[in-house]
Amino acid sequence: MKHYDVIVIGAGHAGCEAALAAARMNCRTLLLTLSLDTIAYMPCNPSIGGPAKGHVVREIDALGGEMGRNIDKTYIQMRMLNTGKGPAVYALRAQADKVMYQREMKKTIEQESMLDLQQGMVERLLVDKDRCYGVITRTGAEYRADAVVLTTGTYLRGKVIIGDLAYESGPNNQQPSIQLAHHLMELGLEMVRFKTGTPPRINSRSIDTEQMEIQPGDEEPRAFSYETTEYITDQLPCWLTYTNEETHQQIRDNLHRAPMFSGVIEGRGPRYCPSIEDKIVRFSDKGRHQIFIEPEGRHTEEMYVQGLSTSLPEDVQEKMLRTIKGLEKVEMLRTGYAIEYDAIVPTQLWPSLETKRIQGLFTAGQINGTSGYEEAAGQGIMAGINAARKVQGRKPVILDRSQAYIGVLIDDLVTKGTAEPYRLLTSRAEYRLLLRHDNADLRLTDLGYEIGLIKEKRYQRFQAKQQAIKSEIARLHQTRIRPTAEVRDQLVKMGTNEIQQVIELAQLLKRPELSYQNIASLSPSPTPLSEDVMEQVEIQIKYEGYIQKSLQQVEKMKKMEEKRIPNWVNYEMIEGISSEAREKLTQVRPLSLGQASRISGVSPADISILMIHMEQGNRAVRKEKVHE
Amino acid sequence: MKHYDVIVIGAGHAGCEAALAAARMNCRTLLLTLSLDTIAYMPCNPSIGGPAKGHVVREIDALGGEMGRNIDKTYIQMRMLNTGKGPAVYALRAQADKVMYQREMKKTIEQESMLDLQQGMVERLLVDKDRCYGVITRTGAEYRADAVVLTTGTYLRGKVIIGDLAYESGPNNQQPSIQLAHHLMELGLEMVRFKTGTPPRINSRSIDTEQMEIQPGDEEPRAFSYETTEYITDQLPCWLTYTNEETHQQIRDNLHRAPMFSGVIEGRGPRYCPSIEDKIVRFSDKGRHQIFIEPEGRHTEEMYVQGLSTSLPEDVQEKMLRTIKGLEKVEMLRTGYAIEYDAIVPTQLWPSLETKRIQGLFTAGQINGTSGYEEAAGQGIMAGINAARKVQGRKPVILDRSQAYIGVLIDDLVTKGTAEPYRLLTSRAEYRLLLRHDNADLRLTDLGYEIGLIKEKRYQRFQAKQQAIKSEIARLHQTRIRPTAEVRDQLVKMGTNEIQQVIELAQLLKRPELSYQNIASLSPSPTPLSEDVMEQVEIQIKYEGYIQKSLQQVEKMKKMEEKRIPNWVNYEMIEGISSEAREKLTQVRPLSLGQASRISGVSPADISILMIHMEQGNRAVRKEKVHE
Repeated sequence: MKHYDVIVIGAGHAGCEAALAAARMNCRTLLLTLSLDTIAYMPCNPSIGGPAKGHVVREIDALGGEMGRNIDKTYIQMRMLNTGKGPAVYALRAQADKVMYQREMKKTIEQESMLDLQQGMVERLLVDKDRCYGVITRTGAEYRADAVVLTTGTYLRGKVIIGDLAYESGPNNQQPSIQLAHHLMELGLEMVRFKTGTPPRINSRSIDTEQMEIQPGDEEPRAFSYETTEYITDQLPCWLTYTNEETHQQIRDNLHRAPMFSGVIEGRGPRYCPSIEDKIVRFSDKGRHQIFIEPEGRHTEEMYVQGLSTSLPEDVQEKMLRTIKGLEKVEMLRTGYAIEYDAIVPTQLWPSLETKRIQGLFTAGQINGTSGYEEAAGQGIMAGINAARKVQGRKPVILDRSQAYIGVLIDDLVTKGTAEPYRLLTSRAEYRLLLRHDNADLRLTDLGYEIGLIKEKRYQRFQAKQQAIKSEIARLHQTRIRPTAEVRDQLVKMGTNEIQQVIELAQLLKRPELSYQNIASLSPSPTPLSEDVMEQVEIQIKYEGYIQKSLQQVEKMKKMEEKRIPNWVNYEMIEGISSEAREKLTQVRPLSLGQASRISGVSPADISILMIHMEQGNRAVRKEKVHE
Repeated sequence: MKHYDVIVIGAGHAGCEAALAAARMNCRTLLLTLSLDTIAYMPCNPSIGGPAKGHVVREIDALGGEMGRNIDKTYIQMRMLNTGKGPAVYALRAQADKVMYQREMKKTIEQESMLDLQQGMVERLLVDKDRCYGVITRTGAEYRADAVVLTTGTYLRGKVIIGDLAYESGPNNQQPSIQLAHHLMELGLEMVRFKTGTPPRINSRSIDTEQMEIQPGDEEPRAFSYETTEYITDQLPCWLTYTNEETHQQIRDNLHRAPMFSGVIEGRGPRYCPSIEDKIVRFSDKGRHQIFIEPEGRHTEEMYVQGLSTSLPEDVQEKMLRTIKGLEKVEMLRTGYAIEYDAIVPTQLWPSLETKRIQGLFTAGQINGTSGYEEAAGQGIMAGINAARKVQGRKPVILDRSQAYIGVLIDDLVTKGTAEPYRLLTSRAEYRLLLRHDNADLRLTDLGYEIGLIKEKRYQRFQAKQQAIKSEIARLHQTRIRPTAEVRDQLVKMGTNEIQQVIELAQLLKRPELSYQNIASLSPSPTPLSEDVMEQVEIQIKYEGYIQKSLQQVEKMKKMEEKRIPNWVNYEMIEGISSEAREKLTQVRPLSLGQASRISGVSPADISILMIHMEQGNRAVRKEKVHE
């Protein structure tokens, strides 16, 4: 029997981050996975990033995680989305070479010195007095550890559904995890049944891209990781086409065979990633839907049909595909399917991602009710960090909602729960002007360093960058420019009004039509600045007002967050709060008034009563102490 | 419902060759596989070739198959084995990059225009009046075809066994194929239970290669395919170490937990690829066994432990590994295991690999009772060719024992059957001086061209090579050299006796100490010759006597093979043959007296009686015809 500090079960996107984080924090870590051939596997779309999701990847990177570095090594296309809009919603998105992505992640894990990797299917947790101390695999091998991180993806009682057919299976014909699912129920965890789906894959040889719109990568690709210095410039295009009335008719004609309408599917699916049959029904007035045809890698003819997730019968899938422009003669390689799986009700978790019921047991990824690789990885790194800190006797790290999308994600899950697979959206973040794609390092690198996941050299580079931004912003505030003829002439050429009097450079930069480059051409920085420093300077000055306002809101929120709810609070004893609030508060056990206020069903009136109760109680506790 | 000419089930090494061959012979072909991610997967050792097996790869290549080309694109090490011995046993062996090997084969299949690839698990064959006309998958999809090739590997009722533990599973935690196994029994096919095993995989980071012997690749690597012109020179080494008394003691101490001795395993294992526990028991006087540590690829730390196949319990595997020099601190990545599976009794097959019971149903690979990727691929290409020819109404292609190792393999299987997983060995070939590694193209390219798998351009190149060999051999026979002072001087320098009189160059080349290069330096060829032409000239002249003798034996054998056993022969009616011979002949239904004579239990006396019976019968048949 072997002893570890941390054991991670599952080597998907959550498990890989959890295992690497724990090992890099000097915990002897074991990563157990059903198959070494499916490490960091992408059973659905071969892409990383996009709105909110791309932000999470950068946050993971700023904390010292792997996803950003790994996709930077293996992408076949990189695009910055939403560049027409404000910087808060810029979003980086990459197409991955699916096989290379797996290969590189596997290699990184194999090379991590404190991390052991082992193929094995976990069937039971070792639990004594509500404390988890290890796992047992199907082969009877027993491994002990002080903390266990569960990242089971869609494997728990996995059931694949196509048409009127359903069979036990993990994703892509992998074996499902049946024993462990039953065992978790026996342990008293409350489970829900969710489902997700995937579209068919097609052979590029059989499609006519002449009839589609090309979607090339960016000419100057950006990177997810702040450490990346080399860029892949040899990119592959994606292709855009559309469904049409014929497609929709084909689907409508076969709706009686769709499992989601015939009742075969019991699990709840992701609202923001609906199947095509769901889209046709819900948005019946829409004449067409976008379909992106995306390569699955550099060395394969296999392509992903984004937008066409479906669990219609196999024959309908092919017919439906062939109604689409450019796909008239398409050959299907893999059939689309829905998959149902068990997840746990995430309000059973502390914000550290440790389960309330079983000490030392952490969960991350789809098992917590989310959907998406990035959501999984974001939880994974936090679960790994907090498992390691638990083992080391340190307080958990909890990201707040103003600090990171990962904070929003986890807070939403553990506070509000979720009735369907949860997907991160920029609209879920109330401080999204602060949680930008461009400043993830500024938000989180200090923390990553403190935790021990950001190494000294990188941290020094980060500090230098931070200093350069600060100095340049200060310089632009301190430097005033006079309305000389030459300056006025230059301004006109830049397409902006001339100035009539002396003005701060920072003030000038706030003009929407001027960029940092314009200002620098009037008055260059004394030292050369890197692209990302210039970008920061520009954004921070241009949006100063909005950012300040957000920060003030954060301050208010922080005050509520700092009001910790003491352990002695017993919601059953508080008179005057609604019965719904009593029930939810008892279930969620929020750590702070802030968290309490975000629970759905808990009203501001309930919060006031709770606050008064806490103050009275605190006085009583203080008095008791005096009397002791 | 879709119609194809040929459907191939399973995309392992047999299935890939079968599907490519059929498609390239202009059959509309469908390849169905459980998972597109395990196409051409190597669940056991990541290597191709070696004695007899390497010969098969070259034969496949000469027939227009893919295995040779694919390994030439993806090897990480290439070695010519047995170079100290005669050319009949030279054997090329490559370490493969496992992931790249799969990726390249998958791409080739995806690009083959007449070939459709589809992920799906076949559960039933469509059979009507003993004729197979299609398949049904788990998803209910029905595909029709005129011929079906079954290549199920170790998936049929697959059961993984480790220690006292056994569970239904395909190789490497893939899903097993249960329904199809039962269905084949229902169809009346006689099945046997075989088993095979694989060793643990280890992390290269945890081994000490300083304590092992390095096994580098050849400085000038050769290729498997006659089409390859580019060579990979950046090779990775393997490492040699040994078991020792402590390892053996560890195994002996735990033999009661070994499934093959405790009775958990019912299937028969491959004699020539025994588990380490089997080796310790059977060769108890041997103090040590060779263990090769082989990389699984260029981008992974995973290494294969050749020689340590085992189904001992997981804890024993680790303890046993750690007794070995250089592996004291080894970390195991995957546990070794045995796998049991259903195979069919191969005497139920015609030499074309079509089943006797069900017309249009062909089988190839492990389902026919063999072990090894090359054996599988060799059967795969023949099954694909014969399925295509059946569909096209042409006679099957049957390689004879003097023509190819593939011929030996298939003849052994369908004539003698096999009581254990069959592995090809050079000793199984009675004409091994003819079946050389170097002359596979000379033996089979004509046939490959005739079948339609060798394209015009390659065939012209081949013919030119053939012509060059012929001319040069003729020149060496026709050219005589005189014993001038200069020649005698040169000969002495070459380390051979001087000559006293005029002598044919061919005669001189027969001297063991002289190479073709020596002869050419005395009298160069009028046109420059390629390496492989020179090699052929040398071998064909040097071994002329032996080759002639072999060819005479072949002639004799051919006479027996030409004596076709007519359909009217009813073994029950032949008086005087032994009851065993009667039974075996009835079961095997040999096509010729030659094949009949190789059936075990059929004596030369039985053959004589059969021959007389045939002659009498033929006269009777002729008479009947006259009277008609």
